Amino acid sequence: MPVIALLTDFGTQDIYGGVMKGVIWSICPDARIADLTHEIPPQDITAGALALWGAVRYFPQGTVFCAVVDPGVGTERRAIALQTHEHFFVGPDNGLLWWAVSESEILAAVELRNPAYFLPVISRTFHGRDIFAPVAAHIANGVPLSEFGPEIDPDTLVKLPPLRAAISDERILAQVIHIDRFGNAITNLREEDFAVWVENLGWRNWLAFIREVVFDEIHRTYGEVPPLTPLLLFNSYGLLEVAVNRGSATQRLGIRMGDVLEIRVAEGV
Amino acid sequence: MPVIALLTDFGTQDIYGGVMKGVIWSICPDARIADLTHEIPPQDITAGALALWGAVRYFPQGTVFCAVVDPGVGTERRAIALQTHEHFFVGPDNGLLWWAVSESEILAAVELRNPAYFLPVISRTFHGRDIFAPVAAHIANGVPLSEFGPEIDPDTLVKLPPLRAAISDERILAQVIHIDRFGNAITNLREEDFAVWVENLGWRNWLAFIREVVFDEIHRTYGEVPPLTPLLLFNSYGLLEVAVNRGSATQRLGIRMGDVLEIRVAEGV
Amino acid sequence: MPVIALLTDFGTQDIYGGVMKGVIWSICPDARIADLTHEIPPQDITAGALALWGAVRYFPQGTVFCAVVDPGVGTERRAIALQTHEHFFVGPDNGLLWWAVSESEILAAVELRNPAYFLPVISRTFHGRDIFAPVAAHIANGVPLSEFGPEIDPDTLVKLPPLRAAISDERILAQVIHIDRFGNAITNLREEDFAVWVENLGWRNWLAFIREVVFDEIHRTYGEVPPLTPLLLFNSYGLLEVAVNRGSATQRLGIRMGDVLEIRVAEGV
Repeated sequence: MPVIALLTDFGTQDIYGGVMKGVIWSICPDARIADLTHEIPPQDITAGALALWGAVRYFPQGTVFCAVVDPGVGTERRAIALQTHEHFFVGPDNGLLWWAVSESEILAAVELRNPAYFLPVISRTFHGRDIFAPVAAHIANGVPLSEFGPEIDPDTLVKLPPLRAAISDERILAQVIHIDRFGNAITNLREEDFAVWVENLGWRNWLAFIREVVFDEIHRTYGEVPPLTPLLLFNSYGLLEVAVNRGSATQRLGIRMGDVLEIRVAEGV
Repeated sequence: MPVIALLTDFGTQDIYGGVMKGVIWSICPDARIADLTHEIPPQDITAGALALWGAVRYFPQGTVFCAVVDPGVGTERRAIALQTHEHFFVGPDNGLLWWAVSESEILAAVELRNPAYFLPVISRTFHGRDIFAPVAAHIANGVPLSEFGPEIDPDTLVKLPPLRAAISDERILAQVIHIDRFGNAITNLREEDFAVWVENLGWRNWLAFIREVVFDEIHRTYGEVPPLTPLLLFNSYGLLEVAVNRGSATQRLGIRMGDVLEIRVAEGV
Repeated sequence: MPVIALLTDFGTQDIYGGVMKGVIWSICPDARIADLTHEIPPQDITAGALALWGAVRYFPQGTVFCAVVDPGVGTERRAIALQTHEHFFVGPDNGLLWWAVSESEILAAVELRNPAYFLPVISRTFHGRDIFAPVAAHIANGVPLSEFGPEIDPDTLVKLPPLRAAISDERILAQVIHIDRFGNAITNLREEDFAVWVENLGWRNWLAFIREVVFDEIHRTYGEVPPLTPLLLFNSYGLLEVAVNRGSATQRLGIRMGDVLEIRVAEGV
């Protein structure tokens, strides 16, 4: 009984997510289907990529992830399927799958080109139903990836910035990889990496710099600082986040995608 | 392993949809259950009927659709089950099931009257749990429709306007069959029917008239026209819609349910 | 094929509920999983307890309810599993499970202490994923409760006020056990208990008192009284509720948790 997990920006008011289940069960009647979420903010690829990355490790070996956040649907962007040691992934080649697969080795990557595995009629706007759901179901049925289309070089996949900060003994360079709907700036510094780095500091303190702001501590919740005050915290994915309590880090601090947060040993301590 | 698909206006904050699954699995333990949506606008029968119509063709042969948008619950409206060549349908006889079954031949229609297949206690307000979910589960178990109550004449079912425009060589008469929550007026003109008609026009142009407005083109998205400007587009169900970008077609254009949009060959071209 | 039902305050925008399914299916591949709701108001234990109580009776024998509304996560509050004649329950020991199990006899109660049945890494903030979901899955696999940790005395469980009013021939004392998000005050008087009491009144009338308000009838819907008018009605769980049409009973009437509504035979009638 294979597992297929769905992650989309379709919302739950419409039947789009439900229809994908009809398509899947028409092809693979014994699939168990999990809705990861259908409420990724519309067309927000990095939000979808983060959610997928945060979820995959908790799913059984062989799970097929069918992810659709696809602003380029109907354009030249490729439709792809990927295989790692643990899982399969189906979706658009726009970075959405990248963080989830970049934790692992990509064993196979194909472009979805074989209409024998699509629905008979392909709409311009709903490849989730017409291409991705049927391909996910066929993978769950055991069809090998090579059946779906030509192999592609994993190096040609659309990538996102790495989901791991650059760390040296004296310094961490963390990059803002996502701005969420609240204006929080999420970086690629992982809590476990930071814990190791801090432990190695011994008695020395650290300071963190981004734009005009300096931080010297990490909070556990937004409410630990007064309203409209900037803070650092590790979010629910275990990634360092620059936030403003009851405010927007992007608006108040001017932080943008790609900005670098530098953490370094405090001098004179 | 039968599939049961749920479509309701119960929302997802409460446990109503979840409880229907408990009832179903108590009766038919191996049913696979798909939530089409539980967020049909409250008591909006035509919104539910459109959603159901848009979904059914993607579900496997034998799927049981259990649909509950039921403003008349507890009144004289009939509770019914219908069978077509492909699917089964359970719900109130208020038009909700009509568009979904009108694409196909109705092989059997019964009124749900046999309490042996209901929950032991029937509330006044929640027939989704007490009648429709258990009947759907018994159908999934293979109980024939005739067990649930007396046969009814399909001609006596509560109907909605046809989901297909009146089309002649020179003219299309499309009817407004639903006003959605944004004030968009959805008509019964299908994209595929319009495509055939336009192809037959050859070099001639067309004009579309409704209330005081005239259109001579169909857009792909709302954003293709300036704010507060009326437009025509085919919506996600493939039905022609009269809309106003960032506004309400019903408020700004005075369009009402049942209004007719006329499309005819433009003269002098 | 065991059933596991999930009830949380995680919302559906994030992947938390979806990840619990990945964890469950990694341990118990043939579980059927029902989302009761993931939209209990954040940290609202009595809202979660009411929803769980309202749902359990509709689920099959042997269902495992995994409920997570857990403001004390990471603190000293116990994690528990309970067994009744019909069902299993997993969650925090903060009252959330109390009303659901108090309808039945508690056959077994244990504290979850055996990490062999948890995920390998336990976060401070997400025991739903790390402890409750895996334990629910192991219970669904048939692991006896005694495996998960030491037996606990049911008398030591965190309790909520009883979900049944104090009723005598002449008088009902109903307690406000929950204030919902709209400011409605829900009491522990059940519709069926009230029906029996009223029937026994014969020709006599009754009056109901709470704070400064007196009621002499029970309405069926909010809209039966003018806006901003107080009313009594039995809500969708069959519990008597003090409400204000289009307003808040707590704000307008000053009603608080624990307040007592007294219903007594009207004199001089």
